[in-house]
Amino acid sequence: MAPADDATTDAVYDELRDRYEQHLYVQHADMIAMWDQQVMMPEDGSPARAKQRGALSAVGHDLLTDDELGDCLDRLDVDELDGDQRAIVREIRREYDRAASVPTDLVTRLSEYSAENHRIWTDAKAADDYDAFAPRLDGMVDLTRERSAAIDAGRDPYEVQYEESQPYLPLDRVEDIFDELREHLVPLIERIRTDGRELPEIPEGTYDAATQDDLCREALTTLGFDWDRGRFDTAPHPFMAGTQFDARVTTRYDESNPLAGLTAAIHEYGHASYQQGLRQDAYGSPLGSPRSSGVHESQSRFWENHIGRTKPFWELFLPTVTEHFPSLSDLTVDEAYAAVNRIHPENLIRVEADELTYHMHIILRCEIDSALVRGELDVEDVPEVWNDKMNEYLGVRPETDAEGCLQDIHWSMGLASFHGYTIGSVLAAQLNAAVREDLDVDGLVREGEFDPIREWMGEHVHRHGQRYPTDELIEVATGEPLTAEYFLDYVDEKFTELYDL
Amino acid sequence: MAPADDATTDAVYDELRDRYEQHLYVQHADMIAMWDQQVMMPEDGSPARAKQRGALSAVGHDLLTDDELGDCLDRLDVDELDGDQRAIVREIRREYDRAASVPTDLVTRLSEYSAENHRIWTDAKAADDYDAFAPRLDGMVDLTRERSAAIDAGRDPYEVQYEESQPYLPLDRVEDIFDELREHLVPLIERIRTDGRELPEIPEGTYDAATQDDLCREALTTLGFDWDRGRFDTAPHPFMAGTQFDARVTTRYDESNPLAGLTAAIHEYGHASYQQGLRQDAYGSPLGSPRSSGVHESQSRFWENHIGRTKPFWELFLPTVTEHFPSLSDLTVDEAYAAVNRIHPENLIRVEADELTYHMHIILRCEIDSALVRGELDVEDVPEVWNDKMNEYLGVRPETDAEGCLQDIHWSMGLASFHGYTIGSVLAAQLNAAVREDLDVDGLVREGEFDPIREWMGEHVHRHGQRYPTDELIEVATGEPLTAEYFLDYVDEKFTELYDL
Repeated sequence: MAPADDATTDAVYDELRDRYEQHLYVQHADMIAMWDQQVMMPEDGSPARAKQRGALSAVGHDLLTDDELGDCLDRLDVDELDGDQRAIVREIRREYDRAASVPTDLVTRLSEYSAENHRIWTDAKAADDYDAFAPRLDGMVDLTRERSAAIDAGRDPYEVQYEESQPYLPLDRVEDIFDELREHLVPLIERIRTDGRELPEIPEGTYDAATQDDLCREALTTLGFDWDRGRFDTAPHPFMAGTQFDARVTTRYDESNPLAGLTAAIHEYGHASYQQGLRQDAYGSPLGSPRSSGVHESQSRFWENHIGRTKPFWELFLPTVTEHFPSLSDLTVDEAYAAVNRIHPENLIRVEADELTYHMHIILRCEIDSALVRGELDVEDVPEVWNDKMNEYLGVRPETDAEGCLQDIHWSMGLASFHGYTIGSVLAAQLNAAVREDLDVDGLVREGEFDPIREWMGEHVHRHGQRYPTDELIEVATGEPLTAEYFLDYVDEKFTELYDL
Repeated sequence: MAPADDATTDAVYDELRDRYEQHLYVQHADMIAMWDQQVMMPEDGSPARAKQRGALSAVGHDLLTDDELGDCLDRLDVDELDGDQRAIVREIRREYDRAASVPTDLVTRLSEYSAENHRIWTDAKAADDYDAFAPRLDGMVDLTRERSAAIDAGRDPYEVQYEESQPYLPLDRVEDIFDELREHLVPLIERIRTDGRELPEIPEGTYDAATQDDLCREALTTLGFDWDRGRFDTAPHPFMAGTQFDARVTTRYDESNPLAGLTAAIHEYGHASYQQGLRQDAYGSPLGSPRSSGVHESQSRFWENHIGRTKPFWELFLPTVTEHFPSLSDLTVDEAYAAVNRIHPENLIRVEADELTYHMHIILRCEIDSALVRGELDVEDVPEVWNDKMNEYLGVRPETDAEGCLQDIHWSMGLASFHGYTIGSVLAAQLNAAVREDLDVDGLVREGEFDPIREWMGEHVHRHGQRYPTDELIEVATGEPLTAEYFLDYVDEKFTELYDL
């Protein structure tokens, strides 16, 4: 490459950013289309939406893998760039390399395979017929290996796939942390099941959705949601989608349980607080984009668990709940606190799991995913391994595959996609410990003063975007690398006290 | 070009369609982003949305003007195609030629110029300061001429620009029709103003928006709106956006007038009926796309005026209105009919104009647009010409430019964009005469049987998509070319009787 003078480096850098921005804007337009599909689209709109989103996905991929974008990356002299610029180039390089190394043909096959899987998985789950889905899972294992080999043929295909959603957070460290969690959580859950006191429950009754909706809106306002840069709606499965200019929270309501929708809303609020905390002036750049799904989940878990499931929060918010549902006016803070923190190991379904058993559902999936992709497990043996692990970890055994290994849609779409949920909780606990070093969080929560807490997260996490690799960001934000220590201390203290262990 | 065998023609044709489809799907994704912007987006979401929509617009343009798409067009042997295929190629050719002939640099300049204009026009209108906007209008005239010259340097630049939104409907015929309208409507409006009886009005009161919303939903259901393939919402300015799988109607409510929101909803329902009537199996092709803005407007005007403003409709629907607003229970059908058909020539604002004076607002704009682009009028003389014409046509003279030539946003974005509104009304009357040849429309409306009417429009207009050029479609649907005759007969009969002339 011919040496470039300063002006040329600037021009190449600017062109690189322009090209990357276009790719990101198309992705964000697709996010709007996805949100609309979940929240607003009429029932029969799917065929057209599938075509539209397919076109955006293809176009977004073409923009990212354009030879001219690659050419800009190759021509840039990194030594001439400042720190922010280098971070931007590092992130674009990573995305480009991964996307450009996968042949278009394989991208298409993967996307068509996933699309076909959706119906096959739905039918197999409905019919409790694992054999109908097994060949599709086998095909997904092959496609995952093929994709990893295209990206980096010399490395463990599972690790390469894992890095797709968890960049810069070494898999071996995460696997060590998951081992620690398993060793610690399995006996803790067992003690709760056998020695724990009986916790109170929310009184039975009908809690109408419209009132729950008012309650959730009041909760979001209390927590500091910026309504000028966001929305709140319902969706079949709660999620958050958005940008620093427009972050959209969803929840769903169960009319027999007034707190489930609220808890989900607070969880998604946490995601939205991350989006709303990203730098507006960096929109379109990696510096204005969230770090990873694991870091994103740390924000949702922090607000859901370390704020929304604490006693101080219920001291503050229970009067608002009883104002909306006067039939709950006999409920005490201790009872509400206990009710939102109940552990139910007998539950078989991940998305209905509690704060503690949830991670055993995740670890089980990661173990099976890893064994499949690494060729240590045959697809046909998955149900038995699944059920054995459920029994070993949670003391329950699914009686059907519909309640077991067929329960999640994820395998229809890919493998190695679960780590973020548990990384998020581990990091949330670590951030929780750090923010409590700086702030009297319980005191602030009791007073309804959430701004300093959100601003602390903004300062330590949000404003950095992708400025630092994930492991560095965690050190910058908390002073140490990712560790299970704080999460394990937190659950020990909380559940030992709650269950009188 | 080397002769192609049958297989090659098929392959080239398929590639052409695939490429065109992608362009259309990206456009439709942008339509969702636009709908969301108007209906759902939080207040501060604009900066990100502008970037996202800008990227979709650029990508859509690139897909349409791709050399390989042009190459497919050049390589196709039209003699080997059937009639439907020829129609598809004709439409893609037309779009490609127009888009590809405009240099990217000019596309960018036009889009940036329009974007800048928005603020300048808003401020100029607020300050009633035409001089602040005049140079921008002058620049838009130059850009319009430049764009037309790029498309076809040998022809009238105004005609070339007009054809952008009204393909295959010769401008000279439309201008003749507009002349007829002007000659006929000006004296009719004058007679109404001087000799017309005083019409009753809707009683003053507060008509709450939520009840109006229920009423509009019931009206849409009555008319046959397919709720599985559409939505109904409110927006600052009513519009319809969508496809055959998902057509979205909007309206707005004035709490002092319960019928304005309803009328707008019925108008937009007409647009949606066109979308919902397009062939689902032709989605992505010109055969599954609406013909032109003029034909689209014929559907909205047909339902708004020839159904929604008829006495039989009010015989059917007044009980539903009074059920929602009991304070109106003394209103008779004749009074309701008169109230929704009042002419108010003193009104200066196009978007608030009635069924009759509306067209004088349009004709005035077309005359000024034409004179500007053809170099027969200086920008500085626009206010005087505008006010003179308002006086000549409607007997009123704006006292400010804010209520005059600055009222519409359209000039910020381009010229020659108004014809479709009046073409739509003229064609609606022609279709109305034709459907009444085949069906007892009044009888069906009284019975609430709207399906046969909608199916007639589906059969004669919707299902054709862009199968025929516009002028041919009109002949296929009504048996004769576009003519002012039916519109003029209709307004004569209706308003002579209504106003006792």
